[in-house]
Amino acid sequence: MNRQIDRKATRTRRAQSAPLGRVSFVGAGPGDPELLTVKAVRAIEAADVVIHDRLASAEVLALVRSGAIAVDAGKEGFGPSTAQSAIDGLIVAYALSGAHVVRLKSGDPTVFGRLDEEMDACDAAGIPFTVIPGITSASAAVAGIGQSLTRRGRNSSVRFVTGHDMQGYAEQDWRSLTRPGEVAAVYMGKRSARFLQGRLMMHGANPGTPVTVVENASRADQRVIASTLAALADDLSAAGLTGPALILLGLAPRDAATLAATQVKEEIAL
Amino acid sequence: MNRQIDRKATRTRRAQSAPLGRVSFVGAGPGDPELLTVKAVRAIEAADVVIHDRLASAEVLALVRSGAIAVDAGKEGFGPSTAQSAIDGLIVAYALSGAHVVRLKSGDPTVFGRLDEEMDACDAAGIPFTVIPGITSASAAVAGIGQSLTRRGRNSSVRFVTGHDMQGYAEQDWRSLTRPGEVAAVYMGKRSARFLQGRLMMHGANPGTPVTVVENASRADQRVIASTLAALADDLSAAGLTGPALILLGLAPRDAATLAATQVKEEIAL
Repeated sequence: MNRQIDRKATRTRRAQSAPLGRVSFVGAGPGDPELLTVKAVRAIEAADVVIHDRLASAEVLALVRSGAIAVDAGKEGFGPSTAQSAIDGLIVAYALSGAHVVRLKSGDPTVFGRLDEEMDACDAAGIPFTVIPGITSASAAVAGIGQSLTRRGRNSSVRFVTGHDMQGYAEQDWRSLTRPGEVAAVYMGKRSARFLQGRLMMHGANPGTPVTVVENASRADQRVIASTLAALADDLSAAGLTGPALILLGLAPRDAATLAATQVKEEIAL
Repeated sequence: MNRQIDRKATRTRRAQSAPLGRVSFVGAGPGDPELLTVKAVRAIEAADVVIHDRLASAEVLALVRSGAIAVDAGKEGFGPSTAQSAIDGLIVAYALSGAHVVRLKSGDPTVFGRLDEEMDACDAAGIPFTVIPGITSASAAVAGIGQSLTRRGRNSSVRFVTGHDMQGYAEQDWRSLTRPGEVAAVYMGKRSARFLQGRLMMHGANPGTPVTVVENASRADQRVIASTLAALADDLSAAGLTGPALILLGLAPRDAATLAATQVKEEIAL
């Protein structure tokens, strides 16, 4: 019913004012500006308004054309610093004024990106939109340690979970996560590491299960902390991470002289 | 032990012959050439040799510079059409001859990409490599139907599973997949749809659970089949899909006049 009313209101508004704008929800990828897709670059360059989050890098924002408006709707971790409804309103308002709005979201907007609320807002206001997927940080993190998320004979499924949800720390299907060979990527898991560790140990996980934390995946300042389930919380505290971090349960960094990140040093050592 | 011997052999080879090449494992994304990352485009353009799979599009292969070698190591679905060991050997042989080899893999090489075997082969031969992640088809498929893989209040985890593994149809944690709100993307699931359906129903899944199949996600010939768990196998048979397809369990296409794919028609109807 509400939607019907909204649609009618939108039609009235359109008849009276500027041509309707549109919205592109664009994945900014994990941080390395070269991990933007070609489509994302083109959308950002063409946008009238770019509404981005706090993790958007200077290199990515440099693509915004002069004359276009860039808005920082920064939010990260527990609780938004700008209320979601305010962001929804901003997107809709700019689009109704006729702008091509790029809503730039770190990683992939379809993975823990709160994309639905914003698509719903566009839908309610009758604003056309499109979604341009991005590289999610799990892919970048696992590539950075020379592993893959799935491996024949090890795991025929991989899970992306969040460390916290609307209720606080997120409950998961812990027992299934304790099985040997299981791989999961935990988003926004930095603060919930001790909780994760406790839950998994309580459900019988092997304390020696490899766990790798990748901070600032794909960026020049990427850091990799190789740990185990038993040592995770302490190792994370000791590391004092300040950037966004992804926890890879069930994976250790590849022990390879040939992985390019360590290539130069290894070449000298040979 | 074997690895030690291999390394020694490699060093000897390097001392005798051309400078060692290197390998970039590159995600080609789901099909739309604009969904290549900037980094992937640059790697393909710079490569001496591009070893690609059967799904590589003509537009992507057009990026291979003239004078470079493109090799089709096509394999798809049940069983490789080129044995994995032959592909491993090809990558290593070209790199040992001094070439910069791009191993181009559909989607994201870290997701059901058999990346490990090829990294292991490089490692054993002492060849430096790097992994450039790509847009995985689940991201493209879900973006194409105006949904997201996770949604606050619905699911705080999402699973990528394969329809078949080394043992044939892949067994999964079926019971947990039957919970309301669960979302999973099934890769290579076209032939295993009836098996999936049977297993999920047997474990008590709601027959009305929405299931969407996206064929050729992100490509101009993308097709979306909106179904339910109960109707999945029959709907898939009736559709007669020929391209790669991804099954999204727990998601229906967005009922939105505003999703850009249907935008033009809807504009006329208004």
